[in-house]
Amino acid sequence: MNSILRSLENVRPADIERRSMEIIESEIGDTSALTPEQKLIVKRVIHTTADFDFLNIMRFSENATDIGLNALKNNAVIVTDTQMALSGISKPALNALGCEAVCFMSDPQIASIAKENGITRAAASMNYAADLYRERNVIFAIGNAPTALVSLYEIIRECNFLPSLIIGAPVGFVNVVQSKQLIMNSGVPFIITQGRKGGSGVAAAICNALLYMLYDRSSGRLFE
Amino acid sequence: MNSILRSLENVRPADIERRSMEIIESEIGDTSALTPEQKLIVKRVIHTTADFDFLNIMRFSENATDIGLNALKNNAVIVTDTQMALSGISKPALNALGCEAVCFMSDPQIASIAKENGITRAAASMNYAADLYRERNVIFAIGNAPTALVSLYEIIRECNFLPSLIIGAPVGFVNVVQSKQLIMNSGVPFIITQGRKGGSGVAAAICNALLYMLYDRSSGRLFE
Repeated sequence: MNSILRSLENVRPADIERRSMEIIESEIGDTSALTPEQKLIVKRVIHTTADFDFLNIMRFSENATDIGLNALKNNAVIVTDTQMALSGISKPALNALGCEAVCFMSDPQIASIAKENGITRAAASMNYAADLYRERNVIFAIGNAPTALVSLYEIIRECNFLPSLIIGAPVGFVNVVQSKQLIMNSGVPFIITQGRKGGSGVAAAICNALLYMLYDRSSGRLFE
Repeated sequence: MNSILRSLENVRPADIERRSMEIIESEIGDTSALTPEQKLIVKRVIHTTADFDFLNIMRFSENATDIGLNALKNNAVIVTDTQMALSGISKPALNALGCEAVCFMSDPQIASIAKENGITRAAASMNYAADLYRERNVIFAIGNAPTALVSLYEIIRECNFLPSLIIGAPVGFVNVVQSKQLIMNSGVPFIITQGRKGGSGVAAAICNALLYMLYDRSSGRLFE
């Protein structure tokens, strides 16, 4: 047991993330296809999952990171499809930028709309958010429900509504792969985890990677 | 695009999880080493991550699932190390069982204790919880901080405090592997994701897998 205790790296709490990122950098392999901003996002997702497969499956539309950053500089609202994703997004960073993050999944009104229409609560949430935030910069951060992405695709096609960015990282086995393909072909800026993998933690990590390009956690201020 | 839309499986919202579990069952391979309860837990983690690697890395101490289920039948408190894990644990199931889940990570008092002592907030949270819940059935569900597991190991060794169960699923690169080894050698009942992988979603999924063995989501009641 003492040998396990002795094998612990002596890293100060504040340095754990820096050390983790060094390890990820040393193991990640060839990232020459990524822009510096894309690489920061991929590395943060790997930091969240310890799964290097995300280097191979993350897809970015052209300028998606710049578009996302611009939205965050302009008081964007981030709409998530889970309370978990919502609670994983950095509130100090959002506050410093004058942004907010919301999730309507636990709203009783959404539950009854979903039930009445035989759709998922995620789909009902997307419709509600698209209606509510028509005049805002909206980033959708989807970490669970493929039906959220399918709904967004339909809303975008039918209602002439264009979110700033869709972070599409639902995880799972039913319609997940297809839902991401729809978004990649929708013309909307996207950051996607292609295939089955993703999750609420991944969606939050992508949001935080963008936020931390603008917000300096050590000083609690925005970068100049 | 229409071909992608046509390729969507037509599954009712309520049936998506059942269908996902069927797909997992058909792809998971040999699970003969697992008890039925262990298999339910592994399948729920794969459902949460789409990562079949968890079949190979999940470790259960003897009777850990029975011990966990017993604690949940006896008004256990689940202590998490992230708000994300907390928000992912089923509140209806907890309520029906008379259990609760808590997380002290955002408590300002914990932050100042951590700062004063040069320890992580996760470590300070574990000390606080061990003190507060000395007379309760406690399940620790750790999805992020290896320092939480190291602290628990030290608390158990020094203070004669025995949690009912430790769910050890921190994710990451610094001291994560070792922290799990400590718990596996501590004598405390454990459910562990060996190696680097894990996460808040995984910790919550393990809790929910246990809860759903006792709580019937379709009726909102406990199983007889």
